Amino acid sequence: MIHVLFFLFAFLLSTTSHHHVVAIDFCVADLKGAETPSGYPCKPLSKVTIDDFVFSKFPKPTKNFFNFSAVVASVDQFPALNGLGFSIVLVEIEAGASVPLHTHPDATEVIIAGNDNIIAGFISSADNKVFVKTLSKGNIMVLPQGLLHFVMNNGKEKASLTVIFTSVRASVQTVAVALFASNFDSNLISKTTFLDHAEIKKLKGIFNGSG
Amino acid sequence: MIHVLFFLFAFLLSTTSHHHVVAIDFCVADLKGAETPSGYPCKPLSKVTIDDFVFSKFPKPTKNFFNFSAVVASVDQFPALNGLGFSIVLVEIEAGASVPLHTHPDATEVIIAGNDNIIAGFISSADNKVFVKTLSKGNIMVLPQGLLHFVMNNGKEKASLTVIFTSVRASVQTVAVALFASNFDSNLISKTTFLDHAEIKKLKGIFNGSG
Amino acid sequence: MIHVLFFLFAFLLSTTSHHHVVAIDFCVADLKGAETPSGYPCKPLSKVTIDDFVFSKFPKPTKNFFNFSAVVASVDQFPALNGLGFSIVLVEIEAGASVPLHTHPDATEVIIAGNDNIIAGFISSADNKVFVKTLSKGNIMVLPQGLLHFVMNNGKEKASLTVIFTSVRASVQTVAVALFASNFDSNLISKTTFLDHAEIKKLKGIFNGSG
Amino acid sequence: MIHVLFFLFAFLLSTTSHHHVVAIDFCVADLKGAETPSGYPCKPLSKVTIDDFVFSKFPKPTKNFFNFSAVVASVDQFPALNGLGFSIVLVEIEAGASVPLHTHPDATEVIIAGNDNIIAGFISSADNKVFVKTLSKGNIMVLPQGLLHFVMNNGKEKASLTVIFTSVRASVQTVAVALFASNFDSNLISKTTFLDHAEIKKLKGIFNGSG
Amino acid sequence: MIHVLFFLFAFLLSTTSHHHVVAIDFCVADLKGAETPSGYPCKPLSKVTIDDFVFSKFPKPTKNFFNFSAVVASVDQFPALNGLGFSIVLVEIEAGASVPLHTHPDATEVIIAGNDNIIAGFISSADNKVFVKTLSKGNIMVLPQGLLHFVMNNGKEKASLTVIFTSVRASVQTVAVALFASNFDSNLISKTTFLDHAEIKKLKGIFNGSG
Amino acid sequence: MIHVLFFLFAFLLSTTSHHHVVAIDFCVADLKGAETPSGYPCKPLSKVTIDDFVFSKFPKPTKNFFNFSAVVASVDQFPALNGLGFSIVLVEIEAGASVPLHTHPDATEVIIAGNDNIIAGFISSADNKVFVKTLSKGNIMVLPQGLLHFVMNNGKEKASLTVIFTSVRASVQTVAVALFASNFDSNLISKTTFLDHAEIKKLKGIFNGSG
Repeated sequence: MIHVLFFLFAFLLSTTSHHHVVAIDFCVADLKGAETPSGYPCKPLSKVTIDDFVFSKFPKPTKNFFNFSAVVASVDQFPALNGLGFSIVLVEIEAGASVPLHTHPDATEVIIAGNDNIIAGFISSADNKVFVKTLSKGNIMVLPQGLLHFVMNNGKEKASLTVIFTSVRASVQTVAVALFASNFDSNLISKTTFLDHAEIKKLKGIFNGSG
Repeated sequence: MIHVLFFLFAFLLSTTSHHHVVAIDFCVADLKGAETPSGYPCKPLSKVTIDDFVFSKFPKPTKNFFNFSAVVASVDQFPALNGLGFSIVLVEIEAGASVPLHTHPDATEVIIAGNDNIIAGFISSADNKVFVKTLSKGNIMVLPQGLLHFVMNNGKEKASLTVIFTSVRASVQTVAVALFASNFDSNLISKTTFLDHAEIKKLKGIFNGSG
Repeated sequence: MIHVLFFLFAFLLSTTSHHHVVAIDFCVADLKGAETPSGYPCKPLSKVTIDDFVFSKFPKPTKNFFNFSAVVASVDQFPALNGLGFSIVLVEIEAGASVPLHTHPDATEVIIAGNDNIIAGFISSADNKVFVKTLSKGNIMVLPQGLLHFVMNNGKEKASLTVIFTSVRASVQTVAVALFASNFDSNLISKTTFLDHAEIKKLKGIFNGSG
Repeated sequence: MIHVLFFLFAFLLSTTSHHHVVAIDFCVADLKGAETPSGYPCKPLSKVTIDDFVFSKFPKPTKNFFNFSAVVASVDQFPALNGLGFSIVLVEIEAGASVPLHTHPDATEVIIAGNDNIIAGFISSADNKVFVKTLSKGNIMVLPQGLLHFVMNNGKEKASLTVIFTSVRASVQTVAVALFASNFDSNLISKTTFLDHAEIKKLKGIFNGSG
Repeated sequence: MIHVLFFLFAFLLSTTSHHHVVAIDFCVADLKGAETPSGYPCKPLSKVTIDDFVFSKFPKPTKNFFNFSAVVASVDQFPALNGLGFSIVLVEIEAGASVPLHTHPDATEVIIAGNDNIIAGFISSADNKVFVKTLSKGNIMVLPQGLLHFVMNNGKEKASLTVIFTSVRASVQTVAVALFASNFDSNLISKTTFLDHAEIKKLKGIFNGSG
Repeated sequence: MIHVLFFLFAFLLSTTSHHHVVAIDFCVADLKGAETPSGYPCKPLSKVTIDDFVFSKFPKPTKNFFNFSAVVASVDQFPALNGLGFSIVLVEIEAGASVPLHTHPDATEVIIAGNDNIIAGFISSADNKVFVKTLSKGNIMVLPQGLLHFVMNNGKEKASLTVIFTSVRASVQTVAVALFASNFDSNLISKTTFLDHAEIKKLKGIFNGSG
């Protein structure tokens, strides 16, 4: 009989959950739906499983041109992040390698050092001040939104970083790639960056750009 | 001729309304669309009626196990609330009955007492301070987001409450129900709440839980 | 070979762009999708073109009853504005004409005068203070959200205005139009505005209203 | 000894509360501080009492020119509302009286009828459609942000309303008051509202305006 | 001469930084200022140093009653987080120990496992479903806002967790502490949780509560 | 007598304005107060004047190294913009000159061309696509947040631009200035941008940088 009464209780308190089988406590992304500025539609509650809440991928090998790798946990790979406004990236950098100068157009970045001897820095726009720090394992550093910054592994072994972004996706604009791997017209580059034509052409060659 | 001129005027000022027959002044929920973190799609203006703006349901009988009832006016029942970020619940509590200790995981609650002798209280997390007050008819009380709280009708007759939530839906997590009406493993409950196994088993029996 | 390495680099840095061909840097409106309180769904990146980012319409002729015209650049006409929370309107007003008293129910308005001798004003609600200013070419004025305001061309030639709204669409409620071009019952108008019946009837005639 | 251990526990979990004696769970307004766009500074936790969370004022007598009264519960009177983005007003209207045509420049209004025979209505800006409804006791109605609206007690006895605003303060702009109780220049009024000079002058007389 | 020209350039582009020596790119907390719902005032740029952007504290020893420890990096300890809406906590749990059942009243929690054999779980409010998972090192799990959850180290050695909260501070409400370490009246606890008086009294003894 | 009645009316409707002499309809910045992430404190209503709502500065001469000039209307110069989340900049560019490649770390930019033959472009980060367009007078273009972009006057006469930013201040990071006018270590620049040391040294000379 209690059983019957309890159903009554559930009914009284949470008619919304019965009526509305979608998200009450969370809005796990339905990745097949159309994304809006606030995120993806919510997956129906009946289709949400524990696996939507757990991310279990790991950085790939770093033996490549840049000698670092990254695995991205944003809403597209980790649907429980839908609507929360942040994402995570796990990074590994070989000894001596660096993540070249870049910006995240819509996110502040926070890095948690997994090893010693990681140099990170950013350039403030207000006064062109360069903020650089050598981090030890467990140090946390904030790299403010949209500012040019870099990370370098100055240690003797591969280093790992846990990176948090205050946006739903880890968008990246690397200066060298934007200028030299694109079809950005070389005359426009020279006029708007003051770089020599010869330098531009050389780097377009390296980065396989055109224009 | 003025007629013609006026149409011209309307055209000049509000081409958006002609082009875009959706919501300019409001975004009434199209409940058949897929919900996103910011709400439902907007119903086309041509389908919006006065009834979308008026809610006219009333609390159900309270003769049940817990002796209280609630009628929920959230966006699912009241589409004009779409995107506004709050919802309303109308509650009735029998004399002597109470709404047991619970939280609203994503909303601050504001209650407007419809009768005297309503005791409401919450526990602050910062210092475990218990904030309790006996409300008179017309008193308004704020119960901050996510904190454990309760409401009790300490009067001699049925009491009514108007409740406002600062979220689109009145999500509720009642401690006794979460622990004892679920299949939450009894060993984990004991380990993480310090309750006795015997007490847990007894209450799982009452609330029809398992595990 | 560098070519191969570069693809690897792109892969490392921007797996999201490959996996998710939607908006990383922007969310251009897919105007065929259903609008939500946060905006339209994002157009797939592959369908975004430079034309989504450029608006190139101009005000229409102003030879009409009110002697002003407006061209609206909100998300419906200019999909790159999706999710940005503002819109633009380009206005032209004949010499001596005015944009009648109106409100924007959900936006602050900012006007940039394209000519001298533009009179703009708003009425504060807190103390019924009337804030009026004659603007010169290049002056910028803020007209706060929801308040009654007007703009008048007090010069000798047609004037232009660039208008920015802090909302996704330029919704407009003109007092004379709302009262006299609608079917708002004349008795209710009189009772709630204190205007004479005769005056109401006269203006309903001019503005083609009923009721 | 447990006592000692518990302090240790509190220390581990909530060092923030010890370090930072301000708001963790809530931000009750320190009304002596300077208000910002997001609200008042937070009162130190040690000064927060149960009375900050309870509002207990009631509408004043309604025997006056307009025959209605209102008591405002916004953050200035009810500091627990700080930062929550809404406020409450309790209204009483004599039989036959009405709250004249007005807007709330930055808030959607939701009214809960305390009596039968309350007529409420608003005018949409998109198509000048008038949405009017006679409410019964317990009915809830949404009046969208910034739109002209009114409420009338069409019953035989004094009526009460519970009103919720989706903004921190119940700002009000009443058409008749803005036009006729201010010093708004009569020529500008006529030119921007199309009302007769005679009508304007008559109402300026009644409402004690100038200009 | 170029020197002079460059100052001109700086002047042209960034007059704001000269006029306004506060935050352009970031708003580092001035912890001596009064906190508002949106955060602390911004520290003047001239007082911002690299140390504002780097957090370098570590978890304390875990040899205590609960056998876990936490070091909190929220805005109060790490002023570069001001206004960003999230905080970080570094946790260590002894083998076999657990963080007892609790909620975060205003934050979703994301945990990154530093070891294998970490069991984490939460209870959904919509249907009392218990979501539990044993995490391996590097796994990331989302624990949605306001829901009851726990974490247990089921391994053979001390485990570490990196925890991200989607709120400016890591507010915590632990069920056992809220009920049994407070002065919450035992009769009210029994009535609103259905727990036995004897059980309540026993746990009040252990947790040093009163009432 | 009506006078007396009207005061009563004002009292009934707007007790908040009497009690609280601050902003009800707007929050004009009190620039002497401490800025928070949501803006400056609000100036008391009694000190607000029409001049707070009007901005009347104009671009300076453009005869300088870069041959363009800008006048900034952000909250620091134009206090009515407080809390609105956008700012305006008026720009003039000599024939043939350009605004070099730069980003706005926290704002989308919208430009309204005041002349023909203005070339503007940005580089998407997702696929390094270069979006370039030659604008005619009156054309409006969106340059998304944080992305590298430039504007060039390709015409035969000085050109003007009205620029809107979706942030409270027009923060600017110019690539050439950040790299070559700062004390950013040349080795780090080379390592993180792939530019030659010689090129870096040459440009540091021109831009007066060190390191």
